[in-house]
Amino acid sequence: MIVRKLKDIRKSDKHVKSEGWTSDRLLLKDDGMGFSFHVTTLFAGAELHMHYQNHLEAVLILKGTGTIEDLGTGETHELKPGVMYALNNNDKHIVRPETEILCACVFNPPVTGREVHDENGAYPADVDAEREPALSD
Amino acid sequence: MIVRKLKDIRKSDKHVKSEGWTSDRLLLKDDGMGFSFHVTTLFAGAELHMHYQNHLEAVLILKGTGTIEDLGTGETHELKPGVMYALNNNDKHIVRPETEILCACVFNPPVTGREVHDENGAYPADVDAEREPALSD
Repeated sequence: MIVRKLKDIRKSDKHVKSEGWTSDRLLLKDDGMGFSFHVTTLFAGAELHMHYQNHLEAVLILKGTGTIEDLGTGETHELKPGVMYALNNNDKHIVRPETEILCACVFNPPVTGREVHDENGAYPADVDAEREPALSD
Repeated sequence: MIVRKLKDIRKSDKHVKSEGWTSDRLLLKDDGMGFSFHVTTLFAGAELHMHYQNHLEAVLILKGTGTIEDLGTGETHELKPGVMYALNNNDKHIVRPETEILCACVFNPPVTGREVHDENGAYPADVDAEREPALSD
C-alpha cells in the first residue's frame, strides 16, 4: 500500500511548475498502478491549449470555475466543482480558468513525471525524449 | 470529449448504494478510458473491510477524516483531505471513517458498474457473475 500526502508532494520533485499551472503527482508510472494520478492547479486568467495525442485524461474539478472549449466540436462547457471531463478521443481543447482551479487528473497510460508539454500541448509518447515546455500554442 | 456533472450522476443509475457507502461513477469501463473514476462517500462510523483481488485502486481524500488499516503490515494511516492511498498490491484493508468521508477513486481495470462486493470485500473479475453485497466480513 502506498500512502502519500499532497502537502509532502508539494515540497518534492513531484511538484511540477509550468506556464499557467502546477501539478502534484500523487502516482506516476513507476508506482505500477497502470495510471497516474495528479492534483493540478490552473491559474486564473490562463489560456491553456492542450492536446494529449498519446494519453487519455480525465479531470474532476474540485475548486474554482472556468470553461473548456472542445476544438473538435466547437462546444464550450462550464467548469466548476463536481464537473468531470474526459478526453476519450485525445480531444484537442482549451481550458480557460476564470478563478484558480484545483482538479484531480488521471492519465492513461501513466505519466512518468519526466514529460513536458511539447509544441502541440501534448506529452510525448517517448518519455526519454524531453522537449522544451510550450503549453500555449 | 465526455463532460459529466456529479449532481446528475447522483440522480442516475450510476449512483450506487451499499452498506456504509455510496459511490457515483463518473467513468466506467464502457467509456473506454482504461480506468474507472468514482466519487465515493463513506459513512461516519462504518467499518469497511475491503480486498480488491482483481483491481488496483487509488483513493484521494477530499473531505472528512478516518483511518485505513493495512492488514498486510498491521499499520494504520490517518485519512484526511489531501491524503492519497493506493492499493498497489491488492492490499487487504479496513477503512474506518470517523466523519463522513468524500473521496475520488480510480480503478484499474475499470469497474463496469455492475459489480457488487463479494464475501471477501472484492469485486469479481467476471463482471457478469453478480453476487450479494457483503462489504463487511
